[in-house]
Amino acid sequence: MVAPEQREQRFEEREMTEKRITDLGEEGLIRRIARACEFLAPSGAVGIGDDCAVVPLPGEKVRLVTTDLLVEDVHFLRSRIPPEDLGHKSLAVNLSDIAAMGGTPREAYLSLALPRDVTLGWVDAFLAGLLELAEASHTALLGGDTTGSRGPIVVNIAVVGDMPAGQVRLRSHARPGDVLCVTGDLGDSAAGLRVLLERHDPTPDLDALVRRHHRPRPHLAEGRWLARQAGVHAMMDVSDGIDLDLRRLLTASRCGAIVDLERLPVSDLLRRVAPTRGWCVSDLACTGGEDYCLLATVSPEAFDQVQSEFEARFGRPLHRIGRLDGSVGSLRYHTAGHVSNPGGRGFDHFGTEQSLPNPARGDET
Amino acid sequence: MVAPEQREQRFEEREMTEKRITDLGEEGLIRRIARACEFLAPSGAVGIGDDCAVVPLPGEKVRLVTTDLLVEDVHFLRSRIPPEDLGHKSLAVNLSDIAAMGGTPREAYLSLALPRDVTLGWVDAFLAGLLELAEASHTALLGGDTTGSRGPIVVNIAVVGDMPAGQVRLRSHARPGDVLCVTGDLGDSAAGLRVLLERHDPTPDLDALVRRHHRPRPHLAEGRWLARQAGVHAMMDVSDGIDLDLRRLLTASRCGAIVDLERLPVSDLLRRVAPTRGWCVSDLACTGGEDYCLLATVSPEAFDQVQSEFEARFGRPLHRIGRLDGSVGSLRYHTAGHVSNPGGRGFDHFGTEQSLPNPARGDET
Repeated sequence: MVAPEQREQRFEEREMTEKRITDLGEEGLIRRIARACEFLAPSGAVGIGDDCAVVPLPGEKVRLVTTDLLVEDVHFLRSRIPPEDLGHKSLAVNLSDIAAMGGTPREAYLSLALPRDVTLGWVDAFLAGLLELAEASHTALLGGDTTGSRGPIVVNIAVVGDMPAGQVRLRSHARPGDVLCVTGDLGDSAAGLRVLLERHDPTPDLDALVRRHHRPRPHLAEGRWLARQAGVHAMMDVSDGIDLDLRRLLTASRCGAIVDLERLPVSDLLRRVAPTRGWCVSDLACTGGEDYCLLATVSPEAFDQVQSEFEARFGRPLHRIGRLDGSVGSLRYHTAGHVSNPGGRGFDHFGTEQSLPNPARGDET
Repeated sequence: MVAPEQREQRFEEREMTEKRITDLGEEGLIRRIARACEFLAPSGAVGIGDDCAVVPLPGEKVRLVTTDLLVEDVHFLRSRIPPEDLGHKSLAVNLSDIAAMGGTPREAYLSLALPRDVTLGWVDAFLAGLLELAEASHTALLGGDTTGSRGPIVVNIAVVGDMPAGQVRLRSHARPGDVLCVTGDLGDSAAGLRVLLERHDPTPDLDALVRRHHRPRPHLAEGRWLARQAGVHAMMDVSDGIDLDLRRLLTASRCGAIVDLERLPVSDLLRRVAPTRGWCVSDLACTGGEDYCLLATVSPEAFDQVQSEFEARFGRPLHRIGRLDGSVGSLRYHTAGHVSNPGGRGFDHFGTEQSLPNPARGDET
């Protein structure tokens, strides 16, 4: 004999397990996985939910580990990305996660599933692009796995790095009052993706945007330097668009933020191209993903000095884009003194929230 | 003006790059990748070519890293493997690589690409199977990546472990004269795969074979113990069949081997079932893959003691199956005093060499 409330509970459980993952979304799925495996995490470790896992090591260091999976027709179109660029990008997105903690990459592990019609020339070019960045970032490719595929090309890279334990910068370390800043221009990569998807005829400007989409530069030196500054509290990389990524930081740190849309750094290139194509610059800068620069929060007392030393060291500005406050989870945009909302959010790989019509990254709507 | 020999060289290069990866095979592709990234390996590290990468750490330990990629319709059929079993197996194959070095697993990182029609119930069951083995092996699931897929389910797991530097057992450490032994029965997993592929009606015996295929037990305790015995020289796990895996060990160690087919350990279960289905037991034991027991070579002086202590400790025998000699790269089989050849070799994921007609693992012939 089952009590009515038990029966109802069972029904809800069944309804839940028959739900599609699209109902849950990527964030929901990650939370579900994180909850399921919390009980196994070793003491002092940071598990699922930041850019990297952080594992204490004997001595003064921690190990960082990150992994990223790229699937053909979800993350890239084979006909549109040169294999060298795909090799570069596959590693770059992982290095960016290491940069976001303030760490140094040491080794990479490559898993590659290849359909039968892939040529050796493709594989060699992919490896050349990957190894060029590996060499430049002093990352050794030490292992992996290869297999056939009956469908898409699949690339998974895991990167192991390390850093001084005391310098790790988590998403959850932001404080109300912090200055919000980014280490590079926003929106170029999303514009490059639009060039590919809207099939514009090539021009030098458009090619440059596509190159920003295909060959992101992980901000490793910037990340390491920022992590050494006591005034820098929280860091993460901008992978899914500043809007979605900042919301994640705010949730982790239990803060709110006001972003000044007019302060979002946008390249001269994008400012020049956008009006000729009818693109909204602040939409691209705010909700377009894959910029792979760093988002950091800095104590207001330290910010001016951090900013000027950053510029002296890297020859590029550290862009102040807003500030944090105590309004938990609230993200507001200001423009010309008014509150504004630049439309949708960043990208969700299961397609529950999107801003761009985006066949290259899994949006089937 | 291009000299004729230059032109010829260019032509050969082009011909090579237009070749399909199937012309090269999995081993050839791995060699190609290994050659391309040798120059980056840090001093003292073991890179591509063993079960795990081995990276020296400050102090007395080394880090082990391994990664395995499973693709739907290549490595598994969604309709035939319960998600719990797929979760178990995805982790088990990585833990087996850690066992093959003699190490201890610490953390796992899961990348998961899921098509839209996968239910939450499937994901929960997959995680339950994975986490049950993670808990049993004291391995923390600390991170990963999730994404959508327009085609197959893709699972990549990377496992980080460690072990005392002096105990690492490489494939390349076997010596002529060593006794060749294995830690478990051979052929059950391959028989389980045949049950699935030949669609036999279920019986308790056949179900047990399928379970051996779906839920391999990584021999972690055995691997750690063997690595502590000075007489044990080389180890690897049996993933692609003893024939193919042993050839890899012989190549790495520049040895040959004689295997006594009648000594290959075969379960009572398989001995009972095989005659009723017309299967050749020694073929299954020799060329069937995915047994995930360990293959070890032991100095002849130490073997008897290692064998008796192994049995006392684990309550199961360490099976002597042959011996190594100096005939570089030569693998011969003896049966009833005659030299024998049990047919094909183990499994190649690009389908250049197969023994079993095997749609579940990528054989399209």
